Amino acid sequence: MSQLKNATIVKAANIYYDGQVTSRTVIQEDGSKVTLGIMLPGTYEFGTDGPEIMEIVSGQLKVLLPGADTWQEINGSATFHVPARSKFALEVFSVTDYCCSYPAE
Amino acid sequence: MSQLKNATIVKAANIYYDGQVTSRTVIQEDGSKVTLGIMLPGTYEFGTDGPEIMEIVSGQLKVLLPGADTWQEINGSATFHVPARSKFALEVFSVTDYCCSYPAE
Repeated sequence: MSQLKNATIVKAANIYYDGQVTSRTVIQEDGSKVTLGIMLPGTYEFGTDGPEIMEIVSGQLKVLLPGADTWQEINGSATFHVPARSKFALEVFSVTDYCCSYPAE
Repeated sequence: MSQLKNATIVKAANIYYDGQVTSRTVIQEDGSKVTLGIMLPGTYEFGTDGPEIMEIVSGQLKVLLPGADTWQEINGSATFHVPARSKFALEVFSVTDYCCSYPAE
């Protein structure tokens, strides 16, 4: 089972869309941040400041990335990249567990 | 903002009640476990193996502890103890953020 070691976790959750999307912020040993989150079924749009790497640990969803004209379907696990200062849309069909990381630009 | 430091976090979420209750397992530096969780509005029943200390970080809910004949109302933050090998019921009215710890018996 994958684990994040020697990390700091912020106790209070991040809550979006009335709790349909929630996450916990984790600062890793090297200072980099990840958020571990849950998305319940629904339709969402998120914006980025810097680039993001979304690792879907488990779930069924589709994603519309900025500039794309077709939705990417995910069943199970997958990773997608979102550019800085952009918006992406998600349609989530089953409880989705994710790990989002924030690489330097 | 309260943080748990030098911790190991299990990447995959714990998912209950179709995702209406989810949590992340955190192993603290001293080896003790806590789970950081979210409960969405709904009615739930949970059982314990060992004793549990539930810290409600934020939320509106009521709790029926084992042996109690009245519900305890919580608005905001609160802590309650649940004995080992027992069941407790929760009626959650707003998104509730919690930290559950598992002291030795």
